[in-house]
This record gives sequence, structure tokens and C-alpha cells, in this order.
Amino acid sequence: MAKEFTYEADGEELREWAEDESDVVEQARATLDDHGVSLSDDEIRQHVEVVPSPRRIKSGADGVFDERRRRGGQRAAREVVESGMDLGLGTGSTTAWAVAEVGRLLREGELEDVRGVATSLQSHELAKEAGIPLVSLDQVTELDVTVDGADQYSEEEPTVIKGGGGAHARERVIDAMADELVIATDEEKATDPLDFPVPVEVMPDARSTVAEDIRDLGGDPELRMAERKDGPLFTANGNLVLDCDFGGLDDTHGTADDLDDIPGVLEHGIFLDMVDTVYLGTAEDVEVLRF
Amino acid sequence: MAKEFTYEADGEELREWAEDESDVVEQARATLDDHGVSLSDDEIRQHVEVVPSPRRIKSGADGVFDERRRRGGQRAAREVVESGMDLGLGTGSTTAWAVAEVGRLLREGELEDVRGVATSLQSHELAKEAGIPLVSLDQVTELDVTVDGADQYSEEEPTVIKGGGGAHARERVIDAMADELVIATDEEKATDPLDFPVPVEVMPDARSTVAEDIRDLGGDPELRMAERKDGPLFTANGNLVLDCDFGGLDDTHGTADDLDDIPGVLEHGIFLDMVDTVYLGTAEDVEVLRF
Repeated sequence: MAKEFTYEADGEELREWAEDESDVVEQARATLDDHGVSLSDDEIRQHVEVVPSPRRIKSGADGVFDERRRRGGQRAAREVVESGMDLGLGTGSTTAWAVAEVGRLLREGELEDVRGVATSLQSHELAKEAGIPLVSLDQVTELDVTVDGADQYSEEEPTVIKGGGGAHARERVIDAMADELVIATDEEKATDPLDFPVPVEVMPDARSTVAEDIRDLGGDPELRMAERKDGPLFTANGNLVLDCDFGGLDDTHGTADDLDDIPGVLEHGIFLDMVDTVYLGTAEDVEVLRF
Repeated sequence: MAKEFTYEADGEELREWAEDESDVVEQARATLDDHGVSLSDDEIRQHVEVVPSPRRIKSGADGVFDERRRRGGQRAAREVVESGMDLGLGTGSTTAWAVAEVGRLLREGELEDVRGVATSLQSHELAKEAGIPLVSLDQVTELDVTVDGADQYSEEEPTVIKGGGGAHARERVIDAMADELVIATDEEKATDPLDFPVPVEVMPDARSTVAEDIRDLGGDPELRMAERKDGPLFTANGNLVLDCDFGGLDDTHGTADDLDDIPGVLEHGIFLDMVDTVYLGTAEDVEVLRF
């Protein structure tokens, strides 16, 4: 978790964040000086909260500190999580705020007896730092709620596209196990028809024939490359990802069924008819879509 | 490849096999002595052929040297493989005879310009020893014929159950790529309705929730254990296998669709409507079923 300082001065909200608390205190002092405010280190620390660290989230600081995502994730956590629940914990910048918020509610005693199952190593580490008791996926066969993100959601149908973070195989398992799937996202990710290139996780050796099958279905598959190693990106399951551009998905059911039928495909990113609720952060507020 | 000596004496077919040629010659000499036949080592070697080695085939020597399987595999190879073809090479004891036969036909010049794609490390090694030029799966997007085995086949529908050997994810890719899927097997493996426990390859962490989903579908899942290591068996893809007993599969389409829909399932062993031809070795001959 990173640390964030927030303070109101002259009706303005001052914010500074850093991975280490000492850095935040230093940055906060400089900002406060600019506004002619004088606080001791201890006073500054009282205004420091733990927040998701952008270090291990793909969209980086710009994504994590987008106000709409923060708002959507926090509100989803506050409204859907109750004491005693088993929770699925999704992956991504908006969900990170939900995870951090559940941690805060637990620390402050507003929630108790909550257990989490992480959809990825990233959400596992975040939940551990946030203080949410974790159980492994094989220990549970159902969950009360999963809060997860999406690369794109629809306002017309309870379907999202996921897999931009490469964790969609495990996410699908954990999303499907939940009585209620809550998508926490922001208003920018709504599109109808859905047109985000569909991430398709494939067995490495089957990449050519799967790519050919996808072209036959009218998609344009592109092997996802890694950025901090040579060659393609490998998922946590040791597979590759083909990002498949179909243009607008006018028939999500048909495309999802067709992708399911391709041998060598582990999971694709069309999460069809799975969504119960979408919390979407807007510039000023949070809207809720229910399906 | 193992070595086999065959010789007719007094109207009786004498057979000896071993992994090494020197052992076969020694065993052949002892057997010939019993029948009062005297041959030099060179003469014995003229009656020695390369045959599949039972060492790396699950069913062992009893399976590999079952006459019906040998007959079915060899006949399939002779009748369906033509020069210039790209072939999928299946896994298992009957298919091993087809692979060995393709190798023999290539050595003897009856076939040329054949390339193989192996469905498993086992069939890859066998094909390499048999002298079949191999290409990797990612180099081709279609095949002329795949010759593969099955754990159980139907006389009523073009569907088989596969996965007893744990290679069914890659087998499905290669079987589906072929213009013609030929199943080489023996008469004992026909059952209607199909009732072989369906092998389901699952992501390791998803094993509990997938098992629960399978019980909801009326199946009885059992985690496949390894025999030469502690704990469960892992596939070539790093996954686990649940052998799922559904009793008789009265509705193969329904069960296959249901299994396809379970998140965390990589591939299951119901190869639905995929079979074009079945070569089945019987006690005296080979029968052919066409769908």
C-alpha cells in the first residue's frame, strides 16, 4: 500500500501521495508551506491514509488516482460488503480502492468477520497489506459478493469485457462463484455495443491455430507482448493472450459461444450475463446500474 | 522404440520383444531352441522389427501388445495416410502402432513427404524414433488427418471419450485441426451410452469449485493421483485432472455443453461430434465405422 496525505486549506483539498510515509510527510510539508499552513510531523501523519500502491497496477498512478475510480471502488465496498461475508477481490485500479476501503472498514471496526479470496497475485498482496483475512480459492465453493473491475461495461446488458490485466481466467472462476457480481468502474468505460479487443487466453502451442479460428470468426487477433521481458506476455497460468479485435460486438452471445468452442482456448474476456450491479464513478458522484 | 522378433515355426507364430535388440536376439534364440530351430544371430536380426516401446505408454506391455490394438493401429495408418499429408499423431497404445507403421512405410518408400504434429511428448518421442519428420503445432493451422486413440467410443454417434492419458487438451486442438479424425482402437472400447468417467482438466486452484459444479451436474468427480510422485497428477499444462463419473451419458451434447460452461475448466474429455472414422481391431480382423 502507498500512503496519501489529504488536508483542506482555504476551501481547497490538498493531496500528496508516495510509496513511503516519510516521503509523504516531506511532500505534505512543502505543499502546506506553499499554502502558509504550519503543522507538526505528527499532525501531518494524522492526515495520512493507506491507499493502493500504483506500483503493481497496470494503469499506474494516473489510473489509480483517477477520482472517479477511487469514488466507484470505495462506494461499492461501503454499500455491498457486510460483516460475515466471504468476498471475491478483483484486480485493477478501481477494485484496488474497494479492497483498500474494506481494509479500512475492518480496521475501524465497521466490518468484522470478512474473508477474501483474491483473483490475482496483485489483489492478494493488496488485500494482505490492507489487513483483509485471506483464504485460498480451493477452500471455498461459493462467495457472497465479488467486487471486480472491467475493461469495458455495457449499459444495455449484464456483460463486461475483462482481461486487460491478463487475470481473466481466475477472475472468471471467482466472479462466477459469487451470489452477486459487482463491477466497480468509471463512467468512461461504458460502450454499446462493447468493442474492447477481447483478451483470449490460449495454450502456447495452440496460438497459430486459435488465431486462425479467430480470423475465421471475423476477429483480428494480436499476440500480447510483455513490456519488461522479451517476447510475449505469459499469464499466471503459463499461457499466452491474444487480444482479438472484433469491432463492435453486436452479438455478444454468439461471439462468446464461438470463442468457447475453439480448442486450445482457456478463457476469453467476454463475461456474459454475469453482472448484477455496476458502480461507476462519475466526475461528481457514483451511479449504480442494476441488472 | 522397442524391438520385436517374429518367426513362423511348425505353423505357430513365435514372438519375443524387448527394449534392446541384443535382449531380443537372446530371447529369440531360447524360443527357437525350444522349437528345434537353428538360426544365426544375423538371420534372427532379419526377423526383428521396431515396435512401440511400452515403457512410456500408460497401458504397458499388455496394452501395447494386444493384437487387436496392433491390428487397428496398423490398418488405420495403411488405409488413411497418403504421401504429402500433414498428420496429427495421437497418444496411446493403439495409435502407437499407427505411428510405428507410418515410420515403416516411410522407411520402405511406400510413403513420402509426410509431416507429423504430435499430441503429446510421448507421441513426439515415438514419432522421432520411428523417423517421421515432425513440425511443431504452431507451424501449421490445418492437418489432413489425425489418427488418435480413445478411452471409449460409440457405435451410435461420432463422439469419443478421451483423456485417460491426460493429454486431451492438446489432443483436442490437434484432432479439431484435421480434415479427417480417425480413431484407432479395439472392439472392447465400444459402449453405448458412453460411460467412461469424463476426464476434466482444471486450473489447480479452481479444483474445489469445479468439483462442486460437477456434483451439481450429477457427476462424481475424483482428483486423479499420480503414481510415481506424491499427490495429484499434473498435466503437461500444469493443471489437474478430475475424473468425473456421470454413469451413462444419455445426453452427450448436454453434458459437454454444461462442462464447457464451468469456469476454471480447460478442456474435458467428451470429443463431441468430432469423429469421422473408427478403425477397431477385433480378435480376427479390423472393422471400420464411418460417420
